[in-house]
Amino acid sequence: MSQHQKKILLNAFNMNCVSHINHGLWTHPRDNSINYNTLEYWTAMAQTLERGLFDGLFIADIVGVYDVYQNSVDLPLREAIQLPVNDPMMLVSAMAAVTRHLGFGITANLSYESPYLFARRLSTLDHLTRGRIGWNIVTGYLDSAARAMGLSGQAEHDLRYDRADEFLEVLYKLWEGSWEDDAVRRDKGARLFADPAKVHQVHHAGKFYQVDGYHLCEPSIQRTPLLYQAGTSARGQQFTTRHAEAIFIAAQDKESTRKTVQNLRAQAVAAGRRAEDLKIFIGIAAVVGDTTRQAQEKFDDYRLHASAEAGLAHFASSVGIDFDRFGLDDPIDYSGSNAIQSAAGVAQAKRMTKRKLLEQFHLGSRYPTLVGSAQEVADELVAWVDEAGIDGFNLSRTVTPESYEDFTDLVIPELQTRGRYKTAYQEGSLRQKLFNEGDRLPARHAAAAYRRQ
Amino acid sequence: MSQHQKKILLNAFNMNCVSHINHGLWTHPRDNSINYNTLEYWTAMAQTLERGLFDGLFIADIVGVYDVYQNSVDLPLREAIQLPVNDPMMLVSAMAAVTRHLGFGITANLSYESPYLFARRLSTLDHLTRGRIGWNIVTGYLDSAARAMGLSGQAEHDLRYDRADEFLEVLYKLWEGSWEDDAVRRDKGARLFADPAKVHQVHHAGKFYQVDGYHLCEPSIQRTPLLYQAGTSARGQQFTTRHAEAIFIAAQDKESTRKTVQNLRAQAVAAGRRAEDLKIFIGIAAVVGDTTRQAQEKFDDYRLHASAEAGLAHFASSVGIDFDRFGLDDPIDYSGSNAIQSAAGVAQAKRMTKRKLLEQFHLGSRYPTLVGSAQEVADELVAWVDEAGIDGFNLSRTVTPESYEDFTDLVIPELQTRGRYKTAYQEGSLRQKLFNEGDRLPARHAAAAYRRQ
Repeated sequence: MSQHQKKILLNAFNMNCVSHINHGLWTHPRDNSINYNTLEYWTAMAQTLERGLFDGLFIADIVGVYDVYQNSVDLPLREAIQLPVNDPMMLVSAMAAVTRHLGFGITANLSYESPYLFARRLSTLDHLTRGRIGWNIVTGYLDSAARAMGLSGQAEHDLRYDRADEFLEVLYKLWEGSWEDDAVRRDKGARLFADPAKVHQVHHAGKFYQVDGYHLCEPSIQRTPLLYQAGTSARGQQFTTRHAEAIFIAAQDKESTRKTVQNLRAQAVAAGRRAEDLKIFIGIAAVVGDTTRQAQEKFDDYRLHASAEAGLAHFASSVGIDFDRFGLDDPIDYSGSNAIQSAAGVAQAKRMTKRKLLEQFHLGSRYPTLVGSAQEVADELVAWVDEAGIDGFNLSRTVTPESYEDFTDLVIPELQTRGRYKTAYQEGSLRQKLFNEGDRLPARHAAAAYRRQ
Repeated sequence: MSQHQKKILLNAFNMNCVSHINHGLWTHPRDNSINYNTLEYWTAMAQTLERGLFDGLFIADIVGVYDVYQNSVDLPLREAIQLPVNDPMMLVSAMAAVTRHLGFGITANLSYESPYLFARRLSTLDHLTRGRIGWNIVTGYLDSAARAMGLSGQAEHDLRYDRADEFLEVLYKLWEGSWEDDAVRRDKGARLFADPAKVHQVHHAGKFYQVDGYHLCEPSIQRTPLLYQAGTSARGQQFTTRHAEAIFIAAQDKESTRKTVQNLRAQAVAAGRRAEDLKIFIGIAAVVGDTTRQAQEKFDDYRLHASAEAGLAHFASSVGIDFDRFGLDDPIDYSGSNAIQSAAGVAQAKRMTKRKLLEQFHLGSRYPTLVGSAQEVADELVAWVDEAGIDGFNLSRTVTPESYEDFTDLVIPELQTRGRYKTAYQEGSLRQKLFNEGDRLPARHAAAAYRRQ
């Protein structure tokens, strides 16, 4: 299969909150995201996504609040900017019960988790979903989170990644090494549930973590859940290209994205993996209509409800700068900020006036937003994949649920017609569906070193 | 309503594992508990329990392994004695999606949780279940758990309760004090999701915990989930009678249980609460048939599959004594052991031979086991409630799912005929259903002190 026939991968990008990325749209009369705290909201969404053959539902998360802008949470509370934000893991089993194939990529900040109990939580979900769970690894960046957790502030950026590396090492020992493949017998006649000779204690005494114990769960289908990551700093990329199977990157234009993609794949190869071991996604939004004109009218209607200021308040926490302290035409340099250089929508340009910045928050975010007919949107998606060398998209929601429904009803059939999107799910785990190499991580992945022979 | 007409409360007692209480029965040909790691197992069970109008499904949990007996986990692995054990919280949303009234009492060990994220997890579940979540508060007792968590051993017993008191204080501040009742507006027209003036930071600087932050969740129906507890040591009772709304106690005979119950209620009153603010449950098992003889035959059949040794291995970790080191007729004194004096089945007699002990593990546990026709089982349940002054039962499973189905089909109608069991669920939250005083904790509960006026 040539590069130009690559099927496009697709995640819905969401969060267990009211306003996720495209801020202000919760106020649109047809938007139902204020029902985020009900089960029906999520089970209906999961069913829509499975109808659209989405590979996964990627659920972001944040611990802490966006209190950098105006040194306050007033605007986040008024506009529900990822506040309140409920726990994403609690959603999974209900959605898994009403779907059969949809994957679930759950964000969890490892900095505030103990690896022993965290490993159990994800193994439990891998069991319950029959191998459809993924974990988006984040290390956090908000001082408000650190204070809520009883710390004086964030750990320094590179130190967070050192800790993350060790956290993953502990998880691999638990997930891949504690129970051998044939440890579980389930033999009623022999009164033998598991063979004690094939279940092993993990002994880990590291710089950040000490663990002495058996993994509490029997092996699940994937063992290690599908690993997502979004780090794009130098240290972040080193971590990502070692561990991640799916990478979520910020993208403003195809040419610079192409360079980032090539660089990531080269680093993976240098780490003993293959270029295609990374599935690379960019965040986009789409406003699609039956015609170009109808799409534009929809976009104009959405814009009436969007909040650029809310987008700026969100961005202020991403880069650690209170934009409220600047005049509209002051040039603002945020290149040296302790920013998360990730998928939160950080532009290439690191110097811009507030006026210019605000203009970029079309629908309350700076994500590339495709507006057009199904044909036009499909053209652009295909162009991104073919020209930038990415694998697919994390589709953020605009007006909910209609933006997912529109995409499913209009864009998916168009992509299918072009042979650029699957027409049915493959069987198997989330990993098998994405890589077609089995349910487990391949032997060339770092995790494999922790398996027992 | 007089004491003698009190309706009987009922929880199913279970765990996200194969063998929970009645050890060995997983090997029965009709037992399906080896499917504990599938969603279908749990959603079908929840539906059965709701058909039986059970008040709740109480899910135990343990972090760590039972390695005291023979200084090994060989038997626990062979007999699946609460090992493997998956995370209980992950089950809730799927079961909530297929039921409307059933409550969920989820066990979580606070010793290894951060209060800030734990508060969010339970608030999320209270939202998703529409107020049907309860938390069984435990502090842990296994050294194997401490080692797995990177500690040298358990904290001393009373210190664990000091820490638990402070943990609850932090949770009350987050759940009851951070968001005022009318903070959330959801007003699209006014672009006002929440009123910032009514959302407050929690500042807690204590001996064990420091928290500086907003609760991440908007108020859920119950705010504080229904609080279950099972501590029966002196310090444990002090904690329990201050915080708990539902108490789970060990019971061997009605007379001693009656004294325990009176004592607990008196302590609650001394703490400013009411005697009836505590719903007191005992653990039982029931083997019921159409006739006495059929029940006895069923019991005899079950016994063929039960494992008394597995029961003893479980008990060994409860009391911290390796019974394998003793001969069958050695008297064993475990009165001074650092036991959990709780619902795990600790007898009144603290000195017994191993032979005598083993005889008590009829179905692989020492729980009172009622064997008989529906009439006989109902007689005994009513006698327990009326004579011991308890409120209801945590019904452990024997052969699964038939023990829950038998109870639902045979015992429930008999209790209903006698007017001792509800014939329909009340509307409202779990707390409202149990106490009929509203969704929130009453003003006389310790949590109320943390509310803002």
